[in-house]
Amino acid sequence: MLRKKGLKTNDKHIKKLAAIVGPKEILFHKEDLISYESDGFTIHSHMPKAVVFPKNTEEVAEVVKYCADNDLSFLARGAGTGLSGGAIPLNGEVIISLVKMKRLLSVDLENRRAVVEPGYVNLKLTNSISDKGYYYAPDPSSQYCCTIGGNVAENAGGAHCLKYGVTTNHILGLEVVSPTGEIMEIGHDGIPDAPGYDLLGILTGSEGTLGIVTKITVRILKNPEEKQTVLAYFDDVADGSQAVSDIVSAGIVPAALEMMDKIAIEGVESAAFPVGHPKDIEALLLIEVDGISAGIDEQINEILDVCKKRNVRSVKVAQDDDERANWWANRKTGFGAMGAISPDYLVQDGVIPRSTLPEVLKRIGDISKESGLRIANIFHAGDGNLHPLILFDSRIPGQTDKALEAGSACLQACADAGGSITGEHGVGIEKREEMRFVFSDKEIEAQTDIREVFNPHYLLNAGKLFPSPGRCAEVKNELKAEAAE
Amino acid sequence: MLRKKGLKTNDKHIKKLAAIVGPKEILFHKEDLISYESDGFTIHSHMPKAVVFPKNTEEVAEVVKYCADNDLSFLARGAGTGLSGGAIPLNGEVIISLVKMKRLLSVDLENRRAVVEPGYVNLKLTNSISDKGYYYAPDPSSQYCCTIGGNVAENAGGAHCLKYGVTTNHILGLEVVSPTGEIMEIGHDGIPDAPGYDLLGILTGSEGTLGIVTKITVRILKNPEEKQTVLAYFDDVADGSQAVSDIVSAGIVPAALEMMDKIAIEGVESAAFPVGHPKDIEALLLIEVDGISAGIDEQINEILDVCKKRNVRSVKVAQDDDERANWWANRKTGFGAMGAISPDYLVQDGVIPRSTLPEVLKRIGDISKESGLRIANIFHAGDGNLHPLILFDSRIPGQTDKALEAGSACLQACADAGGSITGEHGVGIEKREEMRFVFSDKEIEAQTDIREVFNPHYLLNAGKLFPSPGRCAEVKNELKAEAAE
Repeated sequence: MLRKKGLKTNDKHIKKLAAIVGPKEILFHKEDLISYESDGFTIHSHMPKAVVFPKNTEEVAEVVKYCADNDLSFLARGAGTGLSGGAIPLNGEVIISLVKMKRLLSVDLENRRAVVEPGYVNLKLTNSISDKGYYYAPDPSSQYCCTIGGNVAENAGGAHCLKYGVTTNHILGLEVVSPTGEIMEIGHDGIPDAPGYDLLGILTGSEGTLGIVTKITVRILKNPEEKQTVLAYFDDVADGSQAVSDIVSAGIVPAALEMMDKIAIEGVESAAFPVGHPKDIEALLLIEVDGISAGIDEQINEILDVCKKRNVRSVKVAQDDDERANWWANRKTGFGAMGAISPDYLVQDGVIPRSTLPEVLKRIGDISKESGLRIANIFHAGDGNLHPLILFDSRIPGQTDKALEAGSACLQACADAGGSITGEHGVGIEKREEMRFVFSDKEIEAQTDIREVFNPHYLLNAGKLFPSPGRCAEVKNELKAEAAE
Repeated sequence: MLRKKGLKTNDKHIKKLAAIVGPKEILFHKEDLISYESDGFTIHSHMPKAVVFPKNTEEVAEVVKYCADNDLSFLARGAGTGLSGGAIPLNGEVIISLVKMKRLLSVDLENRRAVVEPGYVNLKLTNSISDKGYYYAPDPSSQYCCTIGGNVAENAGGAHCLKYGVTTNHILGLEVVSPTGEIMEIGHDGIPDAPGYDLLGILTGSEGTLGIVTKITVRILKNPEEKQTVLAYFDDVADGSQAVSDIVSAGIVPAALEMMDKIAIEGVESAAFPVGHPKDIEALLLIEVDGISAGIDEQINEILDVCKKRNVRSVKVAQDDDERANWWANRKTGFGAMGAISPDYLVQDGVIPRSTLPEVLKRIGDISKESGLRIANIFHAGDGNLHPLILFDSRIPGQTDKALEAGSACLQACADAGGSITGEHGVGIEKREEMRFVFSDKEIEAQTDIREVFNPHYLLNAGKLFPSPGRCAEVKNELKAEAAE
């Protein structure tokens, strides 16, 4: 780690925090903090007060208690790959980095569970159990570096979540440090209807606003006996969309059902893993079916038939694991690949009912024309999760704002179609105001009331996930502030 | 409806409530209230103040507002089939019966969802869409009469929830009347990772303590192309248990994987739908596989092989839908069938890690010996959800208490094995104290704090789901009571 030498400081809080985690496990010089100003949502950046690297739950609890007792804002951070700004220190927070709590604590194959620390990297889990025939299902594109703790905070999804569900469907238990520094166990261990309220559900996807996860029990799955992957090229986006509907209507539940449009294909073919997709097609589908070997071929044949009926230009089945892996590597460069064809890009994340796909894609096309910005589309088509990628150049005055406006307009289109403003990237800083597209004031207040139960002093990750309070809440807070004086 | 004539009363609250719902939609004479003293958990009974039958959301909200403004306790009730006492009026509640809000409001096949009122009977939904090739998955044994509103309150399960998940996995949105009478929409419409906190998850399974559900958007599924059902008889419970593990280890995910032991079989063969199970076997497995036709036969063959390897006495595949339906009808009489072989019975509902099945069954056998009471076992073996049925005779002094103690001991055995105290029946009145087997005081307090956010005056379904408060909470409440004076 790059760090300025010495622990010379007059800041009493820094000294105390260093005493908790050890003098080598804290950063507080400005030069060392720069890479913590932002996360994967780079449009905003704020300087943290310090970054600490606790090594165990007790240290996390002590740091939190110190912060709570001394009115210091704080937040937790994993690998910093989040796309909505959830780990940005808006209020000059003490950042509690969990990257040194990265052990795989136990694996119980018989009962299909594993226990990991929050800084454990997503893909490592699958890698460490694959030789025994098991894997961990949630597979965000950043899985080679993102942490399972961060996945819990954001309720991360991934291409294969169509069949297997997102992170919340794979979390059986959590150890959590509350915002007042208490260590709690929550969870249901996979019990279908566990007793009490579903705290695990509330914590998962709460974007780091309700507690800091220090231990995670996850469900692991047996590798499917077989998988087959189909790649289909279409000359018309509508045909591709219709093929998606037809596959689902046929009763097939693919493990993954991904779509990319022409601009997205231009991007991935210009990036690290080109596989020779023709650049003149309008859409491609990447479809994977897995399960027991018996029956896979029939499903693939049905998928091929559907594609042919929908005027596919060409369609092929991966001949071996290498070809399949290449197709996926190509797909997973999707967002980053935009960097190859545009100086800057903004990825959006909306959800729509599958049946509205053609109408929403048309509206996104109109937004592109209105804004003068190119918009690529990559989506988890099977569950209607769109990722419009808005290409812009921040060096041209006004383009960043235009891109943000276009992104918001895309989300409005999703909300208008009966969908929502995020499918897997979270709200963070980015989409706070867009929460109003889908929630009334009262519905937002019900949620911030829950936040107050967990996070009563509001020192943990403040300013995220919800819009600026309306008038009533402001009055309430002013009254509180006065009362505290 | 049996009711005493006339609305003569001097009770001003009854008069006001009658004015809201209409004079024909309220019961308050003692004779009319007797069947509302209890629900499916008949060991406790308490007299309600009245029962009202609102016809729409606005009436529910008005009744709730009236109760809240006048410090009247109240609770919601569906069909009253709950097994843990969640609808018993412990505090002389006004019962808000939802049985007259029983319409199917809309069906959207393309986007696979339906909207129902809370009093709509579970099985009616499948019946009304099956001709179009769709069904509603959660299938509690009481589905021919229980309501979907009650299913949401209890997060109901069922035999086919092994593959398809329990109620919470099928609820996309709710309209809820808060305990202060406000109407709210919550939900995520099936979005994989919806924005904000998972209020839908908190409400579902909250056992009627956080709000009254007045409209429900549910996911509907396409009928599987094919299903096959296997019935296997074992001379040794351990062989049957091992077959369950082997099937799951083989990577097969059956739609249902049920087990019954000798006493349970004696029961179902003495009840309404005997199918000729031999009475000298120690255990039977009922295993159903469904999905795309291709591959079903291979899975069935693998299941037959597993059973043979585990010394099955005999095993057969249902020859047609009639035979399958008979087997299921027989299985679904399971709990009630105990009435045919015992004057009284108490059904318990614990969950254990699948690998601990033999050890927990042995412990339940010991509890049976210690208590001198016969215990039958019916379980959703695939997900480790046990239903020990404790047979007793309430006419023999002390036997009811002995049965309750034995039930509690069974739950302790499940908790000790790393499991939990309920798999699908809820906590209600029955298992309040057993919550301490799985939650610390602090973990319970985190939940009651959430209850306070939704249910601040604690007039809705008080005294359910959580144990009597410990000393700290008592002090807190005493202070509150004093403050209010």
